[in-house]
Amino acid sequence: MKNEKFVPNLYVALTHYPVINKRGDIIASALTNLDIHDISRAAKTYGVKRFYVVTPLSDQKVLAKKIIAHWTGGAGAAYNPDRRSAFELTKIKDSIQDVVKDIEDIENCFPKTITTCARRYPTSISYPELRDILEGGLPHLLIFGTAWGLAESMISEANFVLEPITGAAGYNHLSVRSAVSIILDRLLKPEN
Amino acid sequence: MKNEKFVPNLYVALTHYPVINKRGDIIASALTNLDIHDISRAAKTYGVKRFYVVTPLSDQKVLAKKIIAHWTGGAGAAYNPDRRSAFELTKIKDSIQDVVKDIEDIENCFPKTITTCARRYPTSISYPELRDILEGGLPHLLIFGTAWGLAESMISEANFVLEPITGAAGYNHLSVRSAVSIILDRLLKPEN
Repeated sequence: MKNEKFVPNLYVALTHYPVINKRGDIIASALTNLDIHDISRAAKTYGVKRFYVVTPLSDQKVLAKKIIAHWTGGAGAAYNPDRRSAFELTKIKDSIQDVVKDIEDIENCFPKTITTCARRYPTSISYPELRDILEGGLPHLLIFGTAWGLAESMISEANFVLEPITGAAGYNHLSVRSAVSIILDRLLKPEN
Repeated sequence: MKNEKFVPNLYVALTHYPVINKRGDIIASALTNLDIHDISRAAKTYGVKRFYVVTPLSDQKVLAKKIIAHWTGGAGAAYNPDRRSAFELTKIKDSIQDVVKDIEDIENCFPKTITTCARRYPTSISYPELRDILEGGLPHLLIFGTAWGLAESMISEANFVLEPITGAAGYNHLSVRSAVSIILDRLLKPEN
């Protein structure tokens, strides 16, 4: 272990636009309630600083706000304080540009961006490589896509692309909830 | 790497009874649709041999059968063949005893059982220890609980208890979907 007190300076975004559908068309996807729950809880578990739910759609922002308000200040907060502390990390933004601006306001510098994808790119970086980079302490934003994944423009504009999760036998179709959980564990688990 | 061609002989069960609620009472929990999706996909990704959804409740078994049938033989199978191949691993059973019997029929020997829990026990084994055990090739059944976790009787009757997932700052409230994904990755990822 290089750094026993590794405190990650990591932000996570779950993007609903621009993503692709089954045919490869660019779409804005609908929110999935359990994405917000599961990723908020995983973010809290691994010390992620903020989790951004990114959608430009007004009705979807209203829905996300209702979910977050229920668990941070409503009946859900009293029922389950652990859920409350996870949802307190969760913010809603229109775009990745707005997320980057928010992080810049907090950190006084731009975060480097890392996209995730089920495909491997010639420029993909490995989990140990990204962990080494994160141990440097500079702010980074890890971006996940919903539906069939991030639009190519999002991937090409990022500073890094993270290698895909490989299991056995070439099957590579995890839910985004599972993918976020596994990737945070690979990058941030304390005993690494 | 001890074994380059590590083929796990691992089965996974998600139990809805006996589990505990927030107050510690023993209950039978309701199915969550996305548990079945996410864990089937994670099981397929990591080469798990079968994924069992365990519930003694008739209406819940009917629901689970409908979900599985939709994705293995219905409209879902045609729409998404990757989902089909994941759901083909998914079986419904009344109890862990029935799961053990099914594995015995397949393997001609009893599987050892491993329970998972968010608490640490004096007898908890680590991820590397369990990985070493699995590399021996004998059949093992990894058991997860829904709701607030497995009933104490389930934990005490198992052959092993796996150590909890620790992240940062002592927060330990992942969804079962996240926990299964992370644990399968820790135990079975090829590059370990």
